[in-house]
Amino acid sequence: MKNRKLINIRLSDDGAAVIIIDQTALPNETKYITLRTAEEMYEAIYSLRVRGAPAIGIFAAYALFVLATQIKTDDYEIFLAEMSKQSKYLNSSRPTAVNLETQLKRMTDMVEGMSNAPVTQIIEAMRAKADDIYNEDVNMCKKISEQGLALIKDGYGIMTQCNAGPLATSKYGTGLGPIILGHERGMKLHAYINETRPLLQGARLTSYELCELGIDCTLICDNMASIVMSEGKIDAVFAGCDRIAANGDVANKIGTSGLAILAKHYGIPFYIFGPSTTIDMNCPTGADIEIELRSPDEIKEMFYAKPMAPKSVSCYNPSFDVTPNALITAIITENGKFQQNL
Amino acid sequence: MKNRKLINIRLSDDGAAVIIIDQTALPNETKYITLRTAEEMYEAIYSLRVRGAPAIGIFAAYALFVLATQIKTDDYEIFLAEMSKQSKYLNSSRPTAVNLETQLKRMTDMVEGMSNAPVTQIIEAMRAKADDIYNEDVNMCKKISEQGLALIKDGYGIMTQCNAGPLATSKYGTGLGPIILGHERGMKLHAYINETRPLLQGARLTSYELCELGIDCTLICDNMASIVMSEGKIDAVFAGCDRIAANGDVANKIGTSGLAILAKHYGIPFYIFGPSTTIDMNCPTGADIEIELRSPDEIKEMFYAKPMAPKSVSCYNPSFDVTPNALITAIITENGKFQQNL
Repeated sequence: MKNRKLINIRLSDDGAAVIIIDQTALPNETKYITLRTAEEMYEAIYSLRVRGAPAIGIFAAYALFVLATQIKTDDYEIFLAEMSKQSKYLNSSRPTAVNLETQLKRMTDMVEGMSNAPVTQIIEAMRAKADDIYNEDVNMCKKISEQGLALIKDGYGIMTQCNAGPLATSKYGTGLGPIILGHERGMKLHAYINETRPLLQGARLTSYELCELGIDCTLICDNMASIVMSEGKIDAVFAGCDRIAANGDVANKIGTSGLAILAKHYGIPFYIFGPSTTIDMNCPTGADIEIELRSPDEIKEMFYAKPMAPKSVSCYNPSFDVTPNALITAIITENGKFQQNL
Repeated sequence: MKNRKLINIRLSDDGAAVIIIDQTALPNETKYITLRTAEEMYEAIYSLRVRGAPAIGIFAAYALFVLATQIKTDDYEIFLAEMSKQSKYLNSSRPTAVNLETQLKRMTDMVEGMSNAPVTQIIEAMRAKADDIYNEDVNMCKKISEQGLALIKDGYGIMTQCNAGPLATSKYGTGLGPIILGHERGMKLHAYINETRPLLQGARLTSYELCELGIDCTLICDNMASIVMSEGKIDAVFAGCDRIAANGDVANKIGTSGLAILAKHYGIPFYIFGPSTTIDMNCPTGADIEIELRSPDEIKEMFYAKPMAPKSVSCYNPSFDVTPNALITAIITENGKFQQNL
């Protein structure tokens, strides 16, 4: 995967800033923004300029390194206290994805173990650790994509949720990785992309990635998943994840649980993809995962990117669907119940 | 229900035009538009300025009457031919809802049976028939609402799809009718409104109606239906319908079948509401119902009303949900399968 437009996080050449693609401006503009302050970095995560569980983790590692270079002290304790404060601040930007917390903890744990080293050396080590985190993710995504490739066949229709592609990670992605890798190897696959309201990461980002890479895809609204499955177009559902509880319950973008129920109903396999670091063994079940609640304005006011999907993407827009009689408790007319299953 | 802002179809005082609320301008503007030509009337249906299966039927009856007054002839055969042509044209505007076809057929059948009457008398009879169709709908909605009321209890949370309220009918509505009637009788009910992409009839119209009537409600995105059900907030799902096949399969707004599957999974009763005229005994099963496919632009370009919901409506905006392990075929990490149910 050599498409440079999909490389979304890097350190500036002088190491004094993190440069990201502002994902809120996609698909209409590939806008790079340069972040230097803790407030800018927090805002970039909160406002989803950088998003996707693995990508947030990578971004936070680089962000913490940049913030560490700004601490003007040679004193280890002062440095540690300030760096820890910045780490906590970044970590408070979004609660659900474990990767943010995990990667920040790896950075701060390392610093905590270097009390005998000069601050300049610690800062160098932080940069190397952030690079490690990035490179690990590249490798993990590649391995996950290989694993996923073993689950699919030429000609498969695969439904996607939110964005679990290159923009959500370092490269390839998690849920989207097998589709991208399969395409690179000459497989013919077709992605059905749920637009993923309210912020339309499917329409804006997954559609954009797949159109950029020349992979067949069709964009649908979230409430069209059932009709598309009923029409036999879907052979598997692939989704990423933000936190996996020890019992295998999975937190992912809103709507994922509904897709799993639909897939079960239609007898379609439903796969979750993510690095093993997404498994949170300290979290016994899904009930212990904090679900982020966001602003009503995301629902009431439309997302500002216009249009909301690449111009070239195909769409499927059925205005109605058919509910089989067996799923209906009763049909009520003015004369009472026309049909009922009780 | 005396809120005049929700009366959406009427004949002009001189009987020369149909006046409707332009539903595409809601919730931001209550804009009445006056339609005189067949092209304006067709466009009003196609562009969803008037929508909702019963409302389209009522509108088409009045529209055909207005167009009949424009036929400049005293000759019955010429009148019949021209009127039938206009009826076919109006009927071609949208294929799925049976009411459009049914009410136009009632009008043309009547005219076909009046070959001995003068054209002026036929035109008067058409006006009376259109009034009958309107009044029948008022009565049917009231009866349907009473039937629905018997299914719910004080304190119920009821999930709605699309808009099956006053704006979709003559008064009260079908799926929304029991909620409105229950509220009038002092019941405390809470509606959870699916926004209903792509054209957001839930966000724009159902939210508007319930806010106007002072009924508790919460607007959600379509992909939030599963989490809201999982949280025990929903005691019943109420939806309208556009065509009911003889076997009880129901065509309704896209997404309805998915809600039925979710409701079944969570053990929540799922009710369809509609006048008995929505039952199409000539249509054996759902597979025989033509599903309207609409423009990709409805998905790619956001609906033009801004904001897309009343400012006062509550929203629930969880950014993630949890998929229970039992619904997941396998979780794939870089190390292979973490957990699987096969």
